[in-house]
Amino acid sequence: MTLQGTSLIGQRAVEGDRVVIQAIDPSTGETLSPEYKGLNQAHVEEATSLAWEAFDTYREIPLEARAAFLEKIADEIEAIGSELIERAMAETGLPQARIEGERGRTCGQLRLFASVVRAGEWLDVRVDPAMPDRQPMPRPDLRQRHIALGPVAVFGASNFPLAFSVAGGDTASALAAGCPVVVKAHSAHPGTSELVGRAIQKAVNACQLPEGVFSLLFGSGSEIGQALVADPRIQAVGFTGSRSGGMALMKTAQGRAQPIPVYAEMSSINPVFLLPEALKARSEALGEAFVGSLNMGAGQFCTNPGLVIAVKGPDLDKFMSAAQAAVEGSAAQTMLSPGIHKAYQEGVSALSSEAKVREIARGQMGSGDYQCQTGLFATAASDFLSSEALQAEVFGASSLVIECQDMTEVKQVAEQLEGQLTATLHMDDADTDLAKSLIPTLERKAGRIMANGWPTGVEVCHAMVHGGPFPSTSDSRTTSVGSAAIKRFLRPVCYQSLSAELLPEALKEDNPLNVSRLVDGKREH
Amino acid sequence: MTLQGTSLIGQRAVEGDRVVIQAIDPSTGETLSPEYKGLNQAHVEEATSLAWEAFDTYREIPLEARAAFLEKIADEIEAIGSELIERAMAETGLPQARIEGERGRTCGQLRLFASVVRAGEWLDVRVDPAMPDRQPMPRPDLRQRHIALGPVAVFGASNFPLAFSVAGGDTASALAAGCPVVVKAHSAHPGTSELVGRAIQKAVNACQLPEGVFSLLFGSGSEIGQALVADPRIQAVGFTGSRSGGMALMKTAQGRAQPIPVYAEMSSINPVFLLPEALKARSEALGEAFVGSLNMGAGQFCTNPGLVIAVKGPDLDKFMSAAQAAVEGSAAQTMLSPGIHKAYQEGVSALSSEAKVREIARGQMGSGDYQCQTGLFATAASDFLSSEALQAEVFGASSLVIECQDMTEVKQVAEQLEGQLTATLHMDDADTDLAKSLIPTLERKAGRIMANGWPTGVEVCHAMVHGGPFPSTSDSRTTSVGSAAIKRFLRPVCYQSLSAELLPEALKEDNPLNVSRLVDGKREH
Repeated sequence: MTLQGTSLIGQRAVEGDRVVIQAIDPSTGETLSPEYKGLNQAHVEEATSLAWEAFDTYREIPLEARAAFLEKIADEIEAIGSELIERAMAETGLPQARIEGERGRTCGQLRLFASVVRAGEWLDVRVDPAMPDRQPMPRPDLRQRHIALGPVAVFGASNFPLAFSVAGGDTASALAAGCPVVVKAHSAHPGTSELVGRAIQKAVNACQLPEGVFSLLFGSGSEIGQALVADPRIQAVGFTGSRSGGMALMKTAQGRAQPIPVYAEMSSINPVFLLPEALKARSEALGEAFVGSLNMGAGQFCTNPGLVIAVKGPDLDKFMSAAQAAVEGSAAQTMLSPGIHKAYQEGVSALSSEAKVREIARGQMGSGDYQCQTGLFATAASDFLSSEALQAEVFGASSLVIECQDMTEVKQVAEQLEGQLTATLHMDDADTDLAKSLIPTLERKAGRIMANGWPTGVEVCHAMVHGGPFPSTSDSRTTSVGSAAIKRFLRPVCYQSLSAELLPEALKEDNPLNVSRLVDGKREH
Repeated sequence: MTLQGTSLIGQRAVEGDRVVIQAIDPSTGETLSPEYKGLNQAHVEEATSLAWEAFDTYREIPLEARAAFLEKIADEIEAIGSELIERAMAETGLPQARIEGERGRTCGQLRLFASVVRAGEWLDVRVDPAMPDRQPMPRPDLRQRHIALGPVAVFGASNFPLAFSVAGGDTASALAAGCPVVVKAHSAHPGTSELVGRAIQKAVNACQLPEGVFSLLFGSGSEIGQALVADPRIQAVGFTGSRSGGMALMKTAQGRAQPIPVYAEMSSINPVFLLPEALKARSEALGEAFVGSLNMGAGQFCTNPGLVIAVKGPDLDKFMSAAQAAVEGSAAQTMLSPGIHKAYQEGVSALSSEAKVREIARGQMGSGDYQCQTGLFATAASDFLSSEALQAEVFGASSLVIECQDMTEVKQVAEQLEGQLTATLHMDDADTDLAKSLIPTLERKAGRIMANGWPTGVEVCHAMVHGGPFPSTSDSRTTSVGSAAIKRFLRPVCYQSLSAELLPEALKEDNPLNVSRLVDGKREH
């Protein structure tokens, strides 16, 4: 396939007339062809109008057809072959194995949602049969299912050019819910976006769906991104990115005549607690493993361990020495884009210039312009507790160790944390009581609590929560990874005394979709 | 019990020092003792601090204890006896049978939530067992449950002094979810609020729960209501009332350092569609039954049928004649409060002064100062389609008939409606195709779609949706009536690789709570 440098509005390829977007290979600084000319607001309306037209049809196609569409997208993405891998590598500086793994994750996610669509748990079918003889009033027949919210705007993320971008988790879960999707492509990987967008476009055509089910827009975030969220046809927003970017979209969404939900996954520093017995038993191994997690993907994960919390003393010193050695041995890695590299440099500078923060180690200097030099810093808990600035996320391989006087101070630090995607405990059996005393706080602070692992792996499954209290996300009631992500794009509708002919398939008496139902409050099947 | 005119902060009775609130009997205009002195912002902080202190304990008490608490509240409300009925009648002008029915509904609702707590569906337990041998990476053990959001602020509604007030649906579902509740009492029925508040206070004490699980505050909405929503310890808001009131709370909630969800049930005119064959078969019976629904509770229901839509012609004329006669025969009814009566008068005046609106009938004049005179109006669909003002809710017994040229215009009217709690179809079998063509629009517009009934009865059950797109509510993804209302106050937490000892009861391997679970995506039990 030759990249054409166009947006995709339904089945059309559309050339814009605004700001020119071009990818930069961060490993060389080279500008990559082609140019993507940004769209204008009228183009946004074309895409949302098509999405609106597609909505009533798409949300009611048979579940099997919707599942097959998701699988077809996965097939089409795989069919692009090595061109996708090469382009994504060039646009992000990420290595081949990582991009191949991410493609597998992206396609696996689409296929997982196909199975979720078929299983129908997301319909949350509830049936309260009529009670014509009830006194003093009969009860009518009442049935509930969930339906799609409407067209969804998805903002691709920079750090997962496949799994959180054009055909990533937000798109897959919205399409699974029955919502048409309009993607605003991330400007850092336009070629990757076009390739994946064309794969979805092909799948729409092959499955004979209304063309408005999917569009892909290139352009300025402040212009077409904001216009997209303000558009009255858009009914929900999925976003992964910075806190300021997410907050700007939330503000626009709340300012509409009809406010809509924004699912923004924004900022998290993912505290790691090293409990005393675990630290005593394996301080050095923990130090090395920690730096492994810290360096993964040049630290450009939402779940990067940006904070380590422990009681100071010889065991923590050993952990620090091991971590210091590992950081000093860390090779420089190319970051995703010049902009992200600049923000990382500024964040690390700000951290190291704090009077109360000590630099423990820096990684090796890189040869490329956009390479990061891993940073490890430390501060006293009392200083952390008195400075809001030290909780700011530094996106990239940078972490801060908080040295506490005792477990009481560890708990104070935990209690003062902002909302997080994850909280990690490293612990031995003898730490169980301490862990128990921390967990109530961590439950209030984070969407995922783990023991003796590292936060950087996010499994795509049914029990996953990739979400958490503000500011880690804009809506702690949801997850953006895993099958429960579909719930974000649904709302319940109750049908009262409708004839069999008018009831949706999911609610018919003989349960033709064979889905799990709550009948009079009791789980059936 | 003698009313003491105090707020309740935890187990204490607290006298305020601000604006004095006193109930007025709307049937006589008489001021009712005692005086309730409004609280100040420091009192709000006392209540929210107690709620915060209670939160971690209350959210983890055994499900059986939480269920027993809800049942105890119901018992204590019933134990108040006739004093509650008499006071509520005096404060609202509502008749005895209605208040007794509402008490039954309120206590039934609390007991329903007790059964919901025990059944544990709301936990949405998901288990993805570890796969230690999976290639290329093992999968850790991942488990998900839902936990309570945190302390919830509840704003009592004027129109259901029991079922949507101090111990109403918002309070019952929040307590069921594990959230402490701070109620801002509605100033129109302070004595009823105090009686019910003391019943809850007794139940908290009898169940040996932390006192902060419940507080009841009297005072100014713009002062302590806003302070409550702005308080950092409050994590969600339940509100039933006016559109302007709900929007003000939404704005405050979004402007916080940490934005929180507001569940505001605001404004709905509940369109009723009379399809041609049904209208032909029983125009007069429909006209009479419609006015019965319109007059119920002096029209002061969120689901009052404020809009009737049909194709004009002899059948609609017959419906109108029957409705006209029924309205003209409608006795005046006392409204809930002088303020609501005033707003009703103004709304009806505004409607009848619209050049394109015809007055069809008014009900009988009342003798009391705060009685309503039922109003029935009509307008052409073309005029309705060109005037946003005609969609404004008139709270009380007032309805507007939209006369359409044909079914195409009926569909245009449906498509132009704002979000609604309900949409009703009156239809015969021969109307089925027309109903089918309307339902996709109605699904996008309303939370509940019914056939051949009237919207004013809202069953408290599992399949109910009392919710809908904006502006009927602030969040179409939820319901405020029925067992699914509990979902509003929950968020998911994922536990990764936690030892059996650390896992919450709900997630332990042998399922000690005996709840339905999704294991590897498959429904178990």
